[in-house]
Amino acid sequence: MKKLGILLSGRGSNFQAIARSVQAGKIPAEIAVVISNKADAQGLETARAMGLEAVCIPSKGLKRKEFDRRVVALLKEKQVDLVCLAGFMRLLSACFVEQFPDRILNIHPALLPSFPGLDGQRQALEHGVKFSGCTVHFVDTGLDSGPIVAQAVVPVNDDDTLAALSARILSEEHRLYTEAINIVLSGKFRIEGRRVMRT
Amino acid sequence: MKKLGILLSGRGSNFQAIARSVQAGKIPAEIAVVISNKADAQGLETARAMGLEAVCIPSKGLKRKEFDRRVVALLKEKQVDLVCLAGFMRLLSACFVEQFPDRILNIHPALLPSFPGLDGQRQALEHGVKFSGCTVHFVDTGLDSGPIVAQAVVPVNDDDTLAALSARILSEEHRLYTEAINIVLSGKFRIEGRRVMRT
Repeated sequence: MKKLGILLSGRGSNFQAIARSVQAGKIPAEIAVVISNKADAQGLETARAMGLEAVCIPSKGLKRKEFDRRVVALLKEKQVDLVCLAGFMRLLSACFVEQFPDRILNIHPALLPSFPGLDGQRQALEHGVKFSGCTVHFVDTGLDSGPIVAQAVVPVNDDDTLAALSARILSEEHRLYTEAINIVLSGKFRIEGRRVMRT
Repeated sequence: MKKLGILLSGRGSNFQAIARSVQAGKIPAEIAVVISNKADAQGLETARAMGLEAVCIPSKGLKRKEFDRRVVALLKEKQVDLVCLAGFMRLLSACFVEQFPDRILNIHPALLPSFPGLDGQRQALEHGVKFSGCTVHFVDTGLDSGPIVAQAVVPVNDDDTLAALSARILSEEHRLYTEAINIVLSGKFRIEGRRVMRT
């Protein structure tokens, strides 16, 4: 059984979607550990309520490298095969990324490379695009910049509020993250340049 | 009858699509003039073969303002209501844009704000996005940066060549430009910030 490690900083709605897929047998893996850099992250409580191991490694006051070293040590101890960021609000250092080559995923609520960073949904709405969506990508040391595994598109309507658009994207996020995890766990892909292609 | 002015620098495949829509009665307007900044643009020949007025105003050796002044003068003489850029490879100066407020359109072969500038299709393919498309937007003085009128999405397939992706996008461009021209000619839209909304 492959092992997933989840990193989050808040509610972890995408973590919950992954956990539901695992429970439903839609992802052939188990969640080995859920790690938050914030003690009050709601995702930690949710994980514990689901009987999962949930650990806080506080980032506050730690240098990036030291925080990353502690997280990597725990992920390695738990023999994690794939790291899934689910609302984890920190960049990873090279020493973290190098420990899990092509084995760290993130999900972003926009059609990257449009609207990286915070508030992808708001950025899309204010820019006036007619379509937005979400992106699951491999994580490198940049901001939402690694090779793209999967994307989903949603329309942006003229009467959309930020809440309406965000809900439409979130629904696709939950579906897409499971799909992308399965692509990566299957190993049936190759990366050419920045292109992630199914094999 | 509303009057369109077309600006192009090359083949003008989008100009031809607009001309077909006009002939088929799908755009309630006539093409008053086709202007190229290059004497050898194939679009000029095509226009003449269709019985349209086709004029070269060479940009080479002219200062931007002087070139723009001449083009504006011709568009005004022809009483053009809407200016459509169709592969026109120049930025417009503020003195041009101000003469046609919210009345200049451009089409770009990518889902802006991703991949502005040259070779939008190649940029998309090399970046590894799973969806690309095309965008019709109002023209400001920036590079493919004005408010978005309409967009269309196409998938990017793992086995896509640049030619295959470009053809898929071009087919959508031809459909989308007609749709966007009709939105603008109808006047049934408003612009809030950067958002172009139907009314």
